Amino acid sequence: MAFTEFRPLNEKSLIEYIKATPSLSSTIGDKYEDLVIKEVGDGNLNFVFIVVGTSGSVVVKQALPYIRCIGESWPMTKERAYFEATALRVHGKLCPDHVPEVYHFDRTMALIGMRYLAHPHIILRKGLIAGVEYPLLSEHMSDYMSRTLFFTSLLYNNTTEHKRAVTEFCGNVELCRLTEQVVFSDPYRISQYNRWTSPYLDDDAKAVREDSALKLEVADLKSMFCERAQALIHGDLHTGSIMVTQDSTQVIDPEFAFYGPMGFDIGAFLGNLILAFFAQDGHAEQKNDRKAYKEWILRTIEQIWNLFNKKFIALWNQHKDGPGEAYLRDIYNNAEVLQIVQENYMRNLLHDSLGFGAAKMIRRIVGVAHVEDFESIKDVETRANCERRALDFGKMLLKERRKFKSIGEVVSAIQQVGS
Amino acid sequence: MAFTEFRPLNEKSLIEYIKATPSLSSTIGDKYEDLVIKEVGDGNLNFVFIVVGTSGSVVVKQALPYIRCIGESWPMTKERAYFEATALRVHGKLCPDHVPEVYHFDRTMALIGMRYLAHPHIILRKGLIAGVEYPLLSEHMSDYMSRTLFFTSLLYNNTTEHKRAVTEFCGNVELCRLTEQVVFSDPYRISQYNRWTSPYLDDDAKAVREDSALKLEVADLKSMFCERAQALIHGDLHTGSIMVTQDSTQVIDPEFAFYGPMGFDIGAFLGNLILAFFAQDGHAEQKNDRKAYKEWILRTIEQIWNLFNKKFIALWNQHKDGPGEAYLRDIYNNAEVLQIVQENYMRNLLHDSLGFGAAKMIRRIVGVAHVEDFESIKDVETRANCERRALDFGKMLLKERRKFKSIGEVVSAIQQVGS
Repeated sequence: MAFTEFRPLNEKSLIEYIKATPSLSSTIGDKYEDLVIKEVGDGNLNFVFIVVGTSGSVVVKQALPYIRCIGESWPMTKERAYFEATALRVHGKLCPDHVPEVYHFDRTMALIGMRYLAHPHIILRKGLIAGVEYPLLSEHMSDYMSRTLFFTSLLYNNTTEHKRAVTEFCGNVELCRLTEQVVFSDPYRISQYNRWTSPYLDDDAKAVREDSALKLEVADLKSMFCERAQALIHGDLHTGSIMVTQDSTQVIDPEFAFYGPMGFDIGAFLGNLILAFFAQDGHAEQKNDRKAYKEWILRTIEQIWNLFNKKFIALWNQHKDGPGEAYLRDIYNNAEVLQIVQENYMRNLLHDSLGFGAAKMIRRIVGVAHVEDFESIKDVETRANCERRALDFGKMLLKERRKFKSIGEVVSAIQQVGS
Repeated sequence: MAFTEFRPLNEKSLIEYIKATPSLSSTIGDKYEDLVIKEVGDGNLNFVFIVVGTSGSVVVKQALPYIRCIGESWPMTKERAYFEATALRVHGKLCPDHVPEVYHFDRTMALIGMRYLAHPHIILRKGLIAGVEYPLLSEHMSDYMSRTLFFTSLLYNNTTEHKRAVTEFCGNVELCRLTEQVVFSDPYRISQYNRWTSPYLDDDAKAVREDSALKLEVADLKSMFCERAQALIHGDLHTGSIMVTQDSTQVIDPEFAFYGPMGFDIGAFLGNLILAFFAQDGHAEQKNDRKAYKEWILRTIEQIWNLFNKKFIALWNQHKDGPGEAYLRDIYNNAEVLQIVQENYMRNLLHDSLGFGAAKMIRRIVGVAHVEDFESIKDVETRANCERRALDFGKMLLKERRKFKSIGEVVSAIQQVGS
């Protein structure tokens, strides 16, 4: 059986595929009768098979030509697998500790074979819902974000290399368009895909659709998302795209990758942590009121930005005589001017991140795709109350983001409304 | 004689080329012995031949693989002719009244055959030096800028079309790099190419190189230039890229075209008009003190922005239900919210334009390429005084641009220092 044109695999044809693919079969061994295959794609878009053989394991991810959770009515290019594999390789080279290795990529089949992140790895979002602390999360994620963003920006690359890479990822336009629709558009208009915890949030959803000041801010963010090729971003860096254990943090699923604003990645991560915070009251029980865990989330939010800031600036200083063309060394040639431009850069990046983070929060409450953090709260009224506080905070943050001078001020603002 | 690979033409081989090229020979007629050919390339980069035949005329422009004014020591891809021809065609379709028609393009020979803008067309810069008023200039240029910028932005195009076009023009990276160097970098550092009216401006040039606040602002503009694909801009829209008569305004030479920030075009034009203003005192004579002409320049600056603003918004309103994806009609669905976002858009665009305009002023005084407005002032001390006032105004404008709420305020500020 040849795989010369695209077809969706199932557990049976997957075995044939592995047999025909040395880079996969060499990993898992040749005892095909002992293979254990499990389809676990709980995401919205793809098939994901875990394949465990006698001498090793692999994850096989196949993109389908439509959005899986919605069905064939919402077509979506399977070429996204190419951009996912490319981003995994680029980011993996920059940050191998936190990006799973790609063993194999097949563009025709829209198929990636990659490292299986074995037990006890779980999706970070599930850990946050369960109230598990991850002491290394902020160190690891600040490593990942600082390295992937710095090294794919003009702070490190010359403009020739930058424009070449931008050109390549312009091809991932369909996935960008999906983000444009579900993050920046649908929540602010009537759309068949929107949903919210009804009837509790009916007025809240309506208020979002009628808030001119909010629409002004989201338009500016959308422009930045569509026009600004600042770095190769993951494009969907929420807590469902991160797998964790106590020791390990692995970023997966960069199929939305393209050259966009850095703040979109940082904001996605921070915004989803803030959502996790506001969901905690819905998970509180008599034996665990989640108060200490809420404090841990806030500390983590603060640490992530502050460590990111520190590491990003350290990379900048380390490579200030390097090939990057944004701040040439013979112009930004003394400590004073370098400090001024770095502070300016990081202040703008914080504000971008808060804006994108807020937009990501809002869309998870009144848009098409919700988060398990809230969905798993069984009492609907409790859920709605948690969601409303998160939504209100997101709206404030989107409008007022430029007033925050530090992440500490943001954390204080969360504490004020969410303690 | 075939032209199957690139070679620079001269007046003799050009005749052979025209003979072999129906789209050119059909324009100028077949009496080759009567052809009048004149090489007039007074720009920095290319050969430009005017060819006048018995039944018509044509301009033939050929790009050379280096920067002509500096010589073969500064190589520059001749592929720029492709981007120039493409931009002429795109902009020409959007604004045929103010863009010369392209008859012929040959990518191998890096050669464009286009409409000859006959006498009395002259380069606008020369008219400004001579003190000639052009009563239609602001109408025409506001037409050109509003149409070319609006229709190539996400206000009119969907993101698929936008990213496709962005991708194509990413290929013009070498010309972008030239701008990055001569506009945003060299003036702020020691460079072998920089020059200024020495010794008068020695301290002024040094002050530019040591001004941290200025370097901060120019870094932000450079980032925007390198990262933000807002519209298909001309890329070099100074007063030397515009040919005029009393009735006609024609924009030429878009070889620097790419998807960049709109403010770079608007600012180039406004900034060069401000330079023209500050040069007038150097052209004053007993019989013509140029005072009335300075007032005309200021009125023109004010009209250009205000007419541009009006026409751009009119296009926006006219096409608000069109294919553009930046501001969807079911989100920006009432007069109030539309007005808020439009005012925000135009305020930001004014500030971008002032910033880029200021950077263009500065670089023409302490960078590699100077303007004839000042160069033609014979008394060196007088020239230096004019240049210093322009430079000081440019520095102020670059740093303080966000404080200006209208172009009227900018004009008042020019009057204050330049009357």
